[in-house]
Amino acid sequence: MSKLVVSPKIKLAVKNGGPTRVRVGGHVIGGEELVVMAGPCSVESREQLLDVAQAVKAAGGHILRGGAYKPRTLPYSFQGLGEEGLKILDEARRLTGMPIVTEVMAPEDVELVEGYADILQIGSRNMQNYSLLKRVGRAEKPILLKRGMSATIEEWLGCAEYVLSEGNHQVILCERGIRTYETITRNTLDISAVPIIKQISDLPVVVDPSHGTGVRSLVSPMAKAGVVAGADGLLVEVHCHPEKALSDGDQSLHPEEFRCMVKELEPIAAAVGKRL
Amino acid sequence: MSKLVVSPKIKLAVKNGGPTRVRVGGHVIGGEELVVMAGPCSVESREQLLDVAQAVKAAGGHILRGGAYKPRTLPYSFQGLGEEGLKILDEARRLTGMPIVTEVMAPEDVELVEGYADILQIGSRNMQNYSLLKRVGRAEKPILLKRGMSATIEEWLGCAEYVLSEGNHQVILCERGIRTYETITRNTLDISAVPIIKQISDLPVVVDPSHGTGVRSLVSPMAKAGVVAGADGLLVEVHCHPEKALSDGDQSLHPEEFRCMVKELEPIAAAVGKRL
Amino acid sequence: MSKLVVSPKIKLAVKNGGPTRVRVGGHVIGGEELVVMAGPCSVESREQLLDVAQAVKAAGGHILRGGAYKPRTLPYSFQGLGEEGLKILDEARRLTGMPIVTEVMAPEDVELVEGYADILQIGSRNMQNYSLLKRVGRAEKPILLKRGMSATIEEWLGCAEYVLSEGNHQVILCERGIRTYETITRNTLDISAVPIIKQISDLPVVVDPSHGTGVRSLVSPMAKAGVVAGADGLLVEVHCHPEKALSDGDQSLHPEEFRCMVKELEPIAAAVGKRL
Amino acid sequence: MSKLVVSPKIKLAVKNGGPTRVRVGGHVIGGEELVVMAGPCSVESREQLLDVAQAVKAAGGHILRGGAYKPRTLPYSFQGLGEEGLKILDEARRLTGMPIVTEVMAPEDVELVEGYADILQIGSRNMQNYSLLKRVGRAEKPILLKRGMSATIEEWLGCAEYVLSEGNHQVILCERGIRTYETITRNTLDISAVPIIKQISDLPVVVDPSHGTGVRSLVSPMAKAGVVAGADGLLVEVHCHPEKALSDGDQSLHPEEFRCMVKELEPIAAAVGKRL
Repeated sequence: MSKLVVSPKIKLAVKNGGPTRVRVGGHVIGGEELVVMAGPCSVESREQLLDVAQAVKAAGGHILRGGAYKPRTLPYSFQGLGEEGLKILDEARRLTGMPIVTEVMAPEDVELVEGYADILQIGSRNMQNYSLLKRVGRAEKPILLKRGMSATIEEWLGCAEYVLSEGNHQVILCERGIRTYETITRNTLDISAVPIIKQISDLPVVVDPSHGTGVRSLVSPMAKAGVVAGADGLLVEVHCHPEKALSDGDQSLHPEEFRCMVKELEPIAAAVGKRL
Repeated sequence: MSKLVVSPKIKLAVKNGGPTRVRVGGHVIGGEELVVMAGPCSVESREQLLDVAQAVKAAGGHILRGGAYKPRTLPYSFQGLGEEGLKILDEARRLTGMPIVTEVMAPEDVELVEGYADILQIGSRNMQNYSLLKRVGRAEKPILLKRGMSATIEEWLGCAEYVLSEGNHQVILCERGIRTYETITRNTLDISAVPIIKQISDLPVVVDPSHGTGVRSLVSPMAKAGVVAGADGLLVEVHCHPEKALSDGDQSLHPEEFRCMVKELEPIAAAVGKRL
Repeated sequence: MSKLVVSPKIKLAVKNGGPTRVRVGGHVIGGEELVVMAGPCSVESREQLLDVAQAVKAAGGHILRGGAYKPRTLPYSFQGLGEEGLKILDEARRLTGMPIVTEVMAPEDVELVEGYADILQIGSRNMQNYSLLKRVGRAEKPILLKRGMSATIEEWLGCAEYVLSEGNHQVILCERGIRTYETITRNTLDISAVPIIKQISDLPVVVDPSHGTGVRSLVSPMAKAGVVAGADGLLVEVHCHPEKALSDGDQSLHPEEFRCMVKELEPIAAAVGKRL
Repeated sequence: MSKLVVSPKIKLAVKNGGPTRVRVGGHVIGGEELVVMAGPCSVESREQLLDVAQAVKAAGGHILRGGAYKPRTLPYSFQGLGEEGLKILDEARRLTGMPIVTEVMAPEDVELVEGYADILQIGSRNMQNYSLLKRVGRAEKPILLKRGMSATIEEWLGCAEYVLSEGNHQVILCERGIRTYETITRNTLDISAVPIIKQISDLPVVVDPSHGTGVRSLVSPMAKAGVVAGADGLLVEVHCHPEKALSDGDQSLHPEEFRCMVKELEPIAAAVGKRL
């Protein structure tokens, strides 16, 4: 008997009729598979993305991540390549066979992004952008819903409910670190969110150890912790030249580091009944 | 010499060329006037709003607040009356002469809301909704930008920068409480945000002691604290029947409580060189 | 009817039989007087302390603060002058007539410190040092109990209860800023703690805007905010040469700044029925 | 090259000359062994403790935990059995052969507690009780130093420095959850603290998933996460009748649950090169 309690008004995002399984490409998120999504923070150029996509594929990644629309703290920072970025992601998919997960930031962009992406990501800053949630609730693609920077588990499920109640049942939750007083890391990755979600909800949950820590050397140990705690997948930043990345270089793995991490994950996943 | 430091990349939201003065109706926000914005959380009905509007006016309020579009934690909660609510606000303005401040939640609604409102409010949950910020940056009306639930001062100014950099210089910042570990109140109203903003920015700043505390009995003392700390105005929830309010009843003042607060604010405002 | 609720097991630190009035020297803390406690973070030398004591007195301060035992983050930092510091404080009291408030950090030091101090301060880090609380609960002097860095109001009152239940009813609470995610200030001064304490407890409450912000330019506005919110007093760091202070220089006022602040506080205190 | 930076003034608690190995009974904390410390929150009676001690032993636990001196939020709560509790712990040690870890709360109790305990625990509330830290720095027994409720990693290491600089090099750090805004759990267990400590310090680190979550069903998944992230051990609450426990019943495992957890930990520990 669990002590974990959320509002009884949440109907669809809680335990209901068995685990939700989200099918993307040949992968199933929410079952026995551990699905690794990896790639750069931003699509910066055709060459950069195709290079990293091939490296991710070779290292054992399953789904390619990359941002074409970037939510940045200031309007003067690189805002992403927009539709051009989406086209590059499309080319990478054809080249590697990997499905694409990419962020959509505004209701008016959903139709366009949906045409290119296999999974639509809702970023932390937009977790409570209800008009966006309602719009992707009417999309045909699965939604990766990142937890807001200071969202409670209950608020996060409430946002999933917005998507689910519009008819889109393909929702994947993504724990990406919460804001605390600690300054040695960018965020505090709340690993406990994984078993909590598993115990009160049917939705799959993945962990983003890159944003969750902001520190390269912590990505691999925290990825492992997330897997052992029950995560259905990982979202990891990989860049061929992190020191030149237009965003998030400090937390991006080199392809070789990523390859090692995937290899080390195998026995750990096996120990909790998952396979890579 | 101040020790308060923000990113040098913020250009427009920092000190520049003297205080920004936002003119609304006959009022100037950002000068010697203490501007009191008050009204219900939500527009619930024509009768409810007209009653409270007249009470606010009679008690000394200057600008009428009221939500027609409501960001709610769950999709099943009252979502606001939408355009019907805007029309009721319009009627209240004609009846009382008070300008209207009301929230806009999505880029596609800006044109409509702008037709009715005197000030467009961006809510906490949308502080980092950059497509919305860019859109209201091209609006003709002043923007009241609420601080995000766990936004740093620097991030908040970064969001103001999004609006300012699109050409709309009429930005008012609103401190409305931040999320902390404390549970006896709904939020922790960060009064220090007021002098910090005053020392590093030219933008006017107002305080929302209703959301900032979530507790009726704390609204008046915290409103006073905000004024003494240098706030240019207040945003206060008032409802004729708080116990029946569709949202935020626990933190709404009765008109009579509001009247007392305004009266008590007079000598306090005077002591810091402001007038009601 | 207040919505502010704490554990019913707290018996003595809640409202009981009318406001507690703590008498120190000719002053009453918890009545109509606004009591200003000021002085350096640490007693550094005889000359330093006597200089600042006279400046505090001349500027209108009532009680002299100064640490002889300093809780420092590292063992290699200046730990205070110990008993020598207490003797210097004693000399300053004789010279100026001002009572002394100073910190005690360990049960075994209480007897010694009590021999010199008029008020025993329990610092934030020791708020939940229960053996110390029980010991000062048997002291003959009033206790200034600082709120822990991340203590809830309820936990703070629980600590006051430890002192009260041992028989010492002379407890003054001190709000000194809580730990949040914000980094532009050292702490977030929770002004709402003042009206909350006033509404649920009989104990006097003072505000420390120096530790509460860590930024000199914020001390005066936050002191004012605390007073208007209902504080019975202030605890302020003043140093004749803040740039040379062995601790907390960035948040210490010059005597002239302190004098201005006290002067500006007069009309503000008057507006809420207090006198300096 | 790590991005994890702490104050260069910390000399002894950072990486120095290779991992510290703390020897207790036949166990080594800080090597290849995964050391499981388990037992009740409080020693409640002879029968209760001896029962649970045998159950812990039978299930594969290595070290027995149990509090004789309890830091409680209110003076009226059960404060522990004191020396009587220590004697019962001593009996349990003789009966089971397991070493004892128990909390000491005041400098004046160190001598007594040291006579009974194999490891002296410093609780979260006393992490910055510097007189206590200095005193246990002169003790002959290893110290288990719990992280303060809102302590940064740097502050925590600073407190370890207090112990180390007095000459006691046998310090074990214990992550036990930090205070955040989330209310569904008692604390947020910061698993990232484990790899951070491993990367910047030589000290062993253990995880307390019981206090870290406050929820029984989360103890096992979070214990696993801690192990995979690199922890040298666990501190787990076990009680034969959690529903009757005088403290922390909601987070205590039944002996059978504890046995399952230990069994499930085996392959996970093996996957990261540790053995139970």
